[in-house]
Amino acid sequence: MSKLKKGYIQVYMGDGKGKTTAAFGLALRALGYGLKVFIAQFIKEGEYNEIKALKLLGENIVIKQYGSGFFIRNKPKEEEVKLAKNGLKELKDIIKSEKYDLLILDEINVALYFKLISLEDILDIVCTKPDHTEMVFTGRKVAKEIVELADLVTEMREIKHYYSSGIQARNGIEK
Amino acid sequence: MSKLKKGYIQVYMGDGKGKTTAAFGLALRALGYGLKVFIAQFIKEGEYNEIKALKLLGENIVIKQYGSGFFIRNKPKEEEVKLAKNGLKELKDIIKSEKYDLLILDEINVALYFKLISLEDILDIVCTKPDHTEMVFTGRKVAKEIVELADLVTEMREIKHYYSSGIQARNGIEK
Repeated sequence: MSKLKKGYIQVYMGDGKGKTTAAFGLALRALGYGLKVFIAQFIKEGEYNEIKALKLLGENIVIKQYGSGFFIRNKPKEEEVKLAKNGLKELKDIIKSEKYDLLILDEINVALYFKLISLEDILDIVCTKPDHTEMVFTGRKVAKEIVELADLVTEMREIKHYYSSGIQARNGIEK
Repeated sequence: MSKLKKGYIQVYMGDGKGKTTAAFGLALRALGYGLKVFIAQFIKEGEYNEIKALKLLGENIVIKQYGSGFFIRNKPKEEEVKLAKNGLKELKDIIKSEKYDLLILDEINVALYFKLISLEDILDIVCTKPDHTEMVFTGRKVAKEIVELADLVTEMREIKHYYSSGIQARNGIEK
């Protein structure tokens, strides 16, 4: 039986920093309590430093990526759609297994925005969420339907950002 | 020599969720890259689940608490001021050691707001920050002077919150 009695749906959105970072912080907290965590990353690809560190935390966490790692400018490539669709398929099995307490869907808002997946795809997943599973959606732009179905929505707002002064993303801090 | 060439000052503020969580996520990322991390928690006291998990990540992270764990309503108690002042004293030595790449000052904004510490205390610390140290300030209410001196400021805005429907903080998710 899960140690988490009831799971909700959280969304981290907005143009500010800290969306994925907060989701990974949440994963850390859940692991500290002995919960089981699955992180699905859409869009992204690559061994980020937070992934390296989380992997040291044992068997209770699984991370999978369903993206090409390329920034989508206009219409996404066929390959990118294929990766996201494959992610959805795997997620359905993962949800069905009822194994995980925390399911982080990193950048899924962006995958929806760029039509890599559809709103129906997401609703399908949400409908089958086991009671004890907390779901976390991240990504800059979020559909109003996702905000409506969520229990908790936090917007990360950029008030001031050093990027504007031309600083590159630093290893261990931004990536 | 530090793997981080240049450190900045980040602030996570606002009434939304994810400030401390984002800071802990940042700690995770930094650890994944082999950076050295010090987390100083003001106000708080107690073995939070994220702390339990981070401690499994080895020698590169130190966490210390300089709070009583009680919510301050009006004027803080003498004991609370003493704990915060002691934290500041220790922090000065920590900064002087130049040992850490990432220095998280969790709830320091709140410690300032409730006058457990003064703005001068914080400016003293910031002035002696080694070039390679990234500093992170968290806490709901932030002084405008802190926003001015920071390089990156993100506001976590509460758009929707299930607390309003009377849910208690859950182990592994909220704490």
